[in-house]
Amino acid sequence: MVFEIKYRDLMARIGQIKTKGGSFQTPTLLPVIDPKNQIIPPSDMKREFKCEAIITNAFLIKKNFYEQAKKEGLHDFLNFHGPIMTDSGAYQLLVYGEVDVSSEEIVRVQEEIDTDIAIILDIPSSFDATYSEVENGVKLTIKNAEDSQKQRTRDDILWVGPVQGGVYLDLVKYCAREVGKLDFDLHAIGSVTQLMEKYQFEKLVDLVMAAKQNLPLQRPVHLFGAGHPMMFSLAVAMGIDTFDSAAYSLYARNNRYLTPTGTVRLEELKYDICVCPVCKKNSPQELLEKPQKERETLLARHNLHVSLMEVQTIRQSIIEGTLWELLELRARSHPYLLEALRKLGEYSDFLEIFTPTTKPHAIFYCGPETLQRPEVTRHLKKLETFPQPEETDTLLILLEPKTKPFHKSKEHSEIIKIIKGFPEDQQKRIQIVTKSTIFGLIPLELEEVYPLSQHINLKPDPITLQHTTKTITRYLKTHNYRKVIIQLTPPEEDIFEPIQKVCSEKNIDLHIVRVEEESNFKKNLEALQKILREATQCEK
Amino acid sequence: MVFEIKYRDLMARIGQIKTKGGSFQTPTLLPVIDPKNQIIPPSDMKREFKCEAIITNAFLIKKNFYEQAKKEGLHDFLNFHGPIMTDSGAYQLLVYGEVDVSSEEIVRVQEEIDTDIAIILDIPSSFDATYSEVENGVKLTIKNAEDSQKQRTRDDILWVGPVQGGVYLDLVKYCAREVGKLDFDLHAIGSVTQLMEKYQFEKLVDLVMAAKQNLPLQRPVHLFGAGHPMMFSLAVAMGIDTFDSAAYSLYARNNRYLTPTGTVRLEELKYDICVCPVCKKNSPQELLEKPQKERETLLARHNLHVSLMEVQTIRQSIIEGTLWELLELRARSHPYLLEALRKLGEYSDFLEIFTPTTKPHAIFYCGPETLQRPEVTRHLKKLETFPQPEETDTLLILLEPKTKPFHKSKEHSEIIKIIKGFPEDQQKRIQIVTKSTIFGLIPLELEEVYPLSQHINLKPDPITLQHTTKTITRYLKTHNYRKVIIQLTPPEEDIFEPIQKVCSEKNIDLHIVRVEEESNFKKNLEALQKILREATQCEK
Repeated sequence: MVFEIKYRDLMARIGQIKTKGGSFQTPTLLPVIDPKNQIIPPSDMKREFKCEAIITNAFLIKKNFYEQAKKEGLHDFLNFHGPIMTDSGAYQLLVYGEVDVSSEEIVRVQEEIDTDIAIILDIPSSFDATYSEVENGVKLTIKNAEDSQKQRTRDDILWVGPVQGGVYLDLVKYCAREVGKLDFDLHAIGSVTQLMEKYQFEKLVDLVMAAKQNLPLQRPVHLFGAGHPMMFSLAVAMGIDTFDSAAYSLYARNNRYLTPTGTVRLEELKYDICVCPVCKKNSPQELLEKPQKERETLLARHNLHVSLMEVQTIRQSIIEGTLWELLELRARSHPYLLEALRKLGEYSDFLEIFTPTTKPHAIFYCGPETLQRPEVTRHLKKLETFPQPEETDTLLILLEPKTKPFHKSKEHSEIIKIIKGFPEDQQKRIQIVTKSTIFGLIPLELEEVYPLSQHINLKPDPITLQHTTKTITRYLKTHNYRKVIIQLTPPEEDIFEPIQKVCSEKNIDLHIVRVEEESNFKKNLEALQKILREATQCEK
Repeated sequence: MVFEIKYRDLMARIGQIKTKGGSFQTPTLLPVIDPKNQIIPPSDMKREFKCEAIITNAFLIKKNFYEQAKKEGLHDFLNFHGPIMTDSGAYQLLVYGEVDVSSEEIVRVQEEIDTDIAIILDIPSSFDATYSEVENGVKLTIKNAEDSQKQRTRDDILWVGPVQGGVYLDLVKYCAREVGKLDFDLHAIGSVTQLMEKYQFEKLVDLVMAAKQNLPLQRPVHLFGAGHPMMFSLAVAMGIDTFDSAAYSLYARNNRYLTPTGTVRLEELKYDICVCPVCKKNSPQELLEKPQKERETLLARHNLHVSLMEVQTIRQSIIEGTLWELLELRARSHPYLLEALRKLGEYSDFLEIFTPTTKPHAIFYCGPETLQRPEVTRHLKKLETFPQPEETDTLLILLEPKTKPFHKSKEHSEIIKIIKGFPEDQQKRIQIVTKSTIFGLIPLELEEVYPLSQHINLKPDPITLQHTTKTITRYLKTHNYRKVIIQLTPPEEDIFEPIQKVCSEKNIDLHIVRVEEESNFKKNLEALQKILREATQCEK
């Protein structure tokens, strides 16, 4: 097995990729090594930065150091004795319009220089390319992928089948399906660099999800040119296992200082906001005063420390089951990341399939996007088919108490006690559910299912109230109750109308029990008892 | 001048406090030094951690090292040659019920040991104390504060007047007003430790704001016992200039590892998520295997690195003018911090007074809380009194284009061109405004005022639409138009009803111009032109 998966959260996975040059853990960032300008020596990447794997460019090596690299082998040539991935020159193709290497040649080059993970020549497309231009690129990418199956002679190298298609999602899907049918160890998603540069993260989500949903799910997927660490978690959440980035060195060239949530120009940085080895030794002012070359090197090192730290943070969040929380946090780095998270939330049904059903931590309410979590989607699906015994005709919708599970709260336990005092046939007529800020509606029977008692929410706000209303009306539509008794507080008044509407449509008898914040607990209880008794004493 | 303010954002300020022991920059964290158990030596605090100032406990020094401290002086005794603040034993009073020292004694002790910043004996209250218990504490605190004015003999020491009152806001206000009248150099806010421990950040906001709004604004304010770095930015945003925290060492005792956004138990930490000197040398696994005492020291060092890094991040955000963005980011650390931010937003009117009118950076939309920013509040206030010439009777409400300033967009510039083609008296009848996701409504004349063209927003969502509706209806209520022409896209249909209502109430002629996403730009323009011409040709 080339790829072994150990933990999952959303579509992210912690796994291990085995290559002839060694194994490495995923998700991971492969720093881009420019063979002509190694601003951080690859040996430092391993020793100091603890990078398990790197990526370099086979096309540039062929052009500049072919004989040396063939003779020494890639690992000695770069002085990096660990897994190395090589790119095929596709990026140069995009930037310069053409490359003087054939698809077959680049397969051979990668075998000759002894790479560990080889990428066949794919045809990336520019951001503003027409449909037919991109279509031609996709067809050629698929052809190269097919041809490579016969061209390659080494089985000890892992082969990567790239997916192209740019912003044309049908082409992305087509390319993913076709390349996915071939014998590749990994896949890769290209043509995203320009999306990254323009912060078009929402489009990135559609593109990556289109590819992932059409590729063999057990194979690792690489993302070409993931840029800023603030979007790494988004990529990983979509099931990107490896990604390369040259941002650490590109940003360093013009004094851009990375943080996990943004970029600061070194000239504007007045405080020591980082504790990495570079920043512990040099204040921003001191960095600024260094000669250009030294400053660039130090900044690249800082940027790489920050980028790799983010990878570790992501891994930790996967094993904790808090990757969605990390996404919500990172979404505040830039509005377009928030937009992308909302877009990812539209794929919640698909994310749900891969998200563990129990987690070691409580779920946090972080804003409207929390309602798009796969855990919420899963619960809403469950509600659709929540069983309703024939004798149960009365739905009692209670306020959300602070204590969880709800039935252990003072408020609910008293109500449950009252119902248990009823004759058995009356008891059986009542289904108890609780309004929930995050989950919409929680039946008593599900209260102890994770995470229905393991979450921290806030007071309802207009968006959560809308969510509760929608969930209640949906539940009423998919079930058959003759009576609904609902507790309402004044701020919830707005949710009343849609519920009243569905009740009148379905001919359901609706009782509202208004509960003021300052109102008497015992009096409320007595009123509820009376309504419940009357509701369940009458004829069915 | 004891306190010099250099930059502001929200109620935060970057300043300099001068003491006889040296100056230090604010906002700052004063690490708590336990004289009996110096887990990180104070000399390291200065040299390695670059702490400019520390806090220790005069009461504990008196109890255990009085003679030595008197003889050597506090600075030699602690081996910290920089500003030192001393607490008075109030915390011990809270924990142990009583302390064997009088208010007068503790004033003298602090003078004798040669502290730089002395705190008089205040009477903190427990979280669950009754009103009259807290009231007694407040009265005694005020009495001690008054008495101290006569008791103190040294003018080279800065004196701190503490504010108590706990969760009883009227007592907090009273205490702040009374203590604020006296001759103190700084103030301090107490009784918050228990709020912190229970994550009751929303209550903290009311408490701190009650104190700040009643204290002399030019004096620095200290917060006793700020705990976790995730809430430092909230405290600073409320105008807290210095705060102490023992969390770095307390958390270390039971393997709690701080991050800027939360706490991880060392046992659960599987990845190197930090790049501080401690974590660069020791993996979490290695830390866990150290003997207890060494592990505690290393963890305390890591925790302190993280805490101080957060202070630097906060300072950087103040000079950038991005403190609100930092609050929105940190609010995703815990739902109760988000709740606290929403609460802070209720004080937006007050925050607005101190927030700069222009900033070097664009404002980011980060979620519903962005609408509570002081910049938004300021704009809404401005709208209330936005002048309307007598001849202007037609309000043209345009869609928000992507280009900013809006009048430079293709959509708006064409419309403006049309209007400029009208006879002058017709032109004058029209006021052009644009619907805005963040700012509700922006009149053409204000478009270039910061930040009305310097912000990044998203597509409207239910909350921003509600905000736009509210702003438009409010604007219509405070102005006198006879005609309103409004462009509406299908997702905005919801905002229509309240606008229609106010128009019918004020007898305003309302024209809706529906704009489909795919609709023809030129055709829409012609339709609008026709409506505008008719509207402005008729009699006034």
